[in-house]
Amino acid sequence: MDRLYLYDTTLRDGQQTQGVQFSASEKTEIAQMLDALGIDYIEGGWPGANPTDSEFFDNPPATRATLTAFGMTKRAGRSAGNDEVLAAVLNAGTGSVCLVGKTHDFHVREALGISLDENVENIRASLAHLKAQGREAIFDAEHFFDGWKANRDYALQCLLAARDAGARWIVLCDTNGGTLPHEIGAITEAVIAAGIPGDWLGIHTHDDTGNAVAGSLAAIRAGARQVQGTLNGLGERCGNANLTTLIATLALKEEFAPLVPQISKAALTSLLKTSRRLDEILNRQPAPGAPYVGPSAFAHKAGLHASAIVKNPATYEHVPPEAVGNARIIPMSNQAGQSNLRARLQDAGLVVPEGADLAAILTDIKIREDQGYAYDGAQASFELLARKHLGQLPKFFVVERYRVIVERRRNAMGQQISVSEAVVVVEMDGQRVMSVSESHGESDADDRGPVNALWRALAKDLGPFQAAIDDMRLVDFRVRITNGGTDAVTRVTIDSEDRDGHRWSTVGVSPNIVDASFEALQDAVVWKLIRDGARP
Amino acid sequence: MDRLYLYDTTLRDGQQTQGVQFSASEKTEIAQMLDALGIDYIEGGWPGANPTDSEFFDNPPATRATLTAFGMTKRAGRSAGNDEVLAAVLNAGTGSVCLVGKTHDFHVREALGISLDENVENIRASLAHLKAQGREAIFDAEHFFDGWKANRDYALQCLLAARDAGARWIVLCDTNGGTLPHEIGAITEAVIAAGIPGDWLGIHTHDDTGNAVAGSLAAIRAGARQVQGTLNGLGERCGNANLTTLIATLALKEEFAPLVPQISKAALTSLLKTSRRLDEILNRQPAPGAPYVGPSAFAHKAGLHASAIVKNPATYEHVPPEAVGNARIIPMSNQAGQSNLRARLQDAGLVVPEGADLAAILTDIKIREDQGYAYDGAQASFELLARKHLGQLPKFFVVERYRVIVERRRNAMGQQISVSEAVVVVEMDGQRVMSVSESHGESDADDRGPVNALWRALAKDLGPFQAAIDDMRLVDFRVRITNGGTDAVTRVTIDSEDRDGHRWSTVGVSPNIVDASFEALQDAVVWKLIRDGARP
Repeated sequence: MDRLYLYDTTLRDGQQTQGVQFSASEKTEIAQMLDALGIDYIEGGWPGANPTDSEFFDNPPATRATLTAFGMTKRAGRSAGNDEVLAAVLNAGTGSVCLVGKTHDFHVREALGISLDENVENIRASLAHLKAQGREAIFDAEHFFDGWKANRDYALQCLLAARDAGARWIVLCDTNGGTLPHEIGAITEAVIAAGIPGDWLGIHTHDDTGNAVAGSLAAIRAGARQVQGTLNGLGERCGNANLTTLIATLALKEEFAPLVPQISKAALTSLLKTSRRLDEILNRQPAPGAPYVGPSAFAHKAGLHASAIVKNPATYEHVPPEAVGNARIIPMSNQAGQSNLRARLQDAGLVVPEGADLAAILTDIKIREDQGYAYDGAQASFELLARKHLGQLPKFFVVERYRVIVERRRNAMGQQISVSEAVVVVEMDGQRVMSVSESHGESDADDRGPVNALWRALAKDLGPFQAAIDDMRLVDFRVRITNGGTDAVTRVTIDSEDRDGHRWSTVGVSPNIVDASFEALQDAVVWKLIRDGARP
Repeated sequence: MDRLYLYDTTLRDGQQTQGVQFSASEKTEIAQMLDALGIDYIEGGWPGANPTDSEFFDNPPATRATLTAFGMTKRAGRSAGNDEVLAAVLNAGTGSVCLVGKTHDFHVREALGISLDENVENIRASLAHLKAQGREAIFDAEHFFDGWKANRDYALQCLLAARDAGARWIVLCDTNGGTLPHEIGAITEAVIAAGIPGDWLGIHTHDDTGNAVAGSLAAIRAGARQVQGTLNGLGERCGNANLTTLIATLALKEEFAPLVPQISKAALTSLLKTSRRLDEILNRQPAPGAPYVGPSAFAHKAGLHASAIVKNPATYEHVPPEAVGNARIIPMSNQAGQSNLRARLQDAGLVVPEGADLAAILTDIKIREDQGYAYDGAQASFELLARKHLGQLPKFFVVERYRVIVERRRNAMGQQISVSEAVVVVEMDGQRVMSVSESHGESDADDRGPVNALWRALAKDLGPFQAAIDDMRLVDFRVRITNGGTDAVTRVTIDSEDRDGHRWSTVGVSPNIVDASFEALQDAVVWKLIRDGARP
């Protein structure tokens, strides 16, 4: 069957993005998301190049996708078996190994400083070594397109060396991102004509001219049957081909859909969630206009468009937003806003009485978002706000005051230690309850800081509500400085989880990070009490 | 001369971006920037559609570029001269007028609800009316590519009606962004073959599949000689073709450069500044990986790349960053190699002695990044770390202990207020100095939280170093939870600025957010003291 293999390099090339540094556990989580999407190859990193990549390959996640280790062809002057960099890559024990090697004569001379023949031999011997070790061998032909333009015979000689050494895939890389799509298409065709079948060829592009996706599609149309990219287009400089975009286009456009049976309709609807989770891991705001998954990707602002959309969504949408888990937004239409809000409230299990003043809720949300709140990522706080307007917010307790102290000093042994102490005073059912919590220890790791101390003080003694509280914990905490009106304020979003793994998110905003955190903590507790059916 | 006309619609289609609303004076400033770049047409908005656009056209800026008013073809059942919407557009008095009209039979029936012939007559009469009024007439053929695929004869009939009525330009619009570049190229060729010369044809694409730039280039290669787009790719949904990207590609790629003599080398170097100024107007962060102008567009993080770049920048750059006013960055991280490190240290003005143990610095960076540090966004902390290894880190002061208290309670008037108090004890030149700072007030806005309180206590009395400290302030603060080894830790990055606007970034990591912040604060101060040439 003619089919296209999807090769993800978020964990390797994506990690080359400025400011991006995955931990090993984040790598594992991302690999699992990629696997759920239906990706064929997951390039996990370069074993031996840094501690994180090594740690990841020491305990690789179980995936249906083929986990692939990345490295480079052996260096000159030693055998493939005696190259310790290559040995570290092979030691990761993956079934598939991808080695990058040079194919541009200029680079062989300038960057490696070896002869053209030595380089060809390095490619041949390295790929043959992979094959001899029983691995699926992949060759990333670095700077191939520039190499082809400069010295076609030599570039091709490098590919043929890899092919003859037993490479399963030969990946044409536009490493500096400067080759335009029509060139990529034409050169890929020429390579196929020169004797490397399309179903041995992969394409790897970068977005330095904003054409990485188009270049990939051009190579696929020319016959290449592996495409490399990264989630959300992460990667060195301007990023790699955006696999999030490519997956949607390949699966939804008639011309390409038969090539990607591995992307199921159901998996495709998780595309937005996957993209957003990666942004969360990176603490990045989603790109508003990202194709398919951007928060604005299906926002119809122009009056002419919005009115036509109401008649028939196909008028201004090339694909239905639901196909990728996204939703249509009509920002200027108050009517659409209200019906949208009603649907969301009903989804949350709220009773919305006839004649409820939904416009007042929308106005309040707009005012609060202007102050720095963001309800998109904090559904639980949004629900509490709506409940307040609808008169459906129970008053379980009132926080009268709190105080938190963080002290850093030397202990008796002269070591620097930190201590956090929190006091929370709550009024509940006419009674004042004062709780204190302290964290300290012989090492820094025993102290989790002021927010944790406040949480433990708040959760310590909530009387009749204690059972509900004991069943929850804080799992994530995100902080962003944003503009509230004219001043910078701190927005804190907290994710909480119960023992069954249900998660909910709450938000707090204040110039003071502790106050913002406490607001989000309180919302988290109140939302849990309501969900558990507690009564004041 | 065969030449390509650049048509900017930032002020019209760009204003359809969710969350974007220009004022009339912002429109004027943007028009002036576009004019300085060498754009041929500036579409200023839709006169009569909203007060801002009308205000802009009432006092249009003087530009070398042709200012263009946008509107739609006349409605059915009235003459072009009696359509008040069209009259408002003409009243703006621009030399050039662009009218959008339908060319997709489905839209004529679904959205307009008129007959196919009526629509053709609306196009003809409207364009003829522009011509009769002595204006340059431009026809935006809405949904043209979908229309062509659905009913080729009808779509073409609409274009020919515009041509025969005297339109100077007929612009093929991929309004919903769903047509792929190879289709755009092929259909543009077919239109030219059907009798509309390429130098009457324009192309207008949207980025819903991430191919707006590629689609534009495909149409230009097919012969179209006007290209429409927006600065930074603003626009409805996923945005329009990014003109910032297109200008650079057209001017810098050999194949296209002869087509755009209006973009001078000098104007091209202002591309980055223009892009950033638009972000400032919109209060948006620049997209890190935007082609050519992104802050990371020329950031070489991979060790292999960075070492080659040092030898010859052309190895990993398809164009020189200076050509668009950008600059090369070699960030430090655990991906980096020794040559990368040496280049960075020299850039920072450090003396790197022969035989310095650069490997030890890299190892330390790798260990610390594993603990949660990230140095590629915190150059100043990286420099301090390197100085420590090289024995070039002066000891200005030692922080013996600190304590911060945040208290939220009611004041005498019963209002909730927050108070933050910090104490810092520093040893300096054999002396202990204890400083305290307090923030509180009648309103929340008077309290900036514990980090600010600590900063003020630390900065209060640093004796001989006070002048250097008084000349700096904290301008941004970023927090993320990350994994340090097996535990979650908090990473805080702080940006500081001096009075001359120089910025530097520092990082701190700890399970306790206050400790992490304090570490970054301390680095910020020490880096400033070194830069100012202070001596302990």
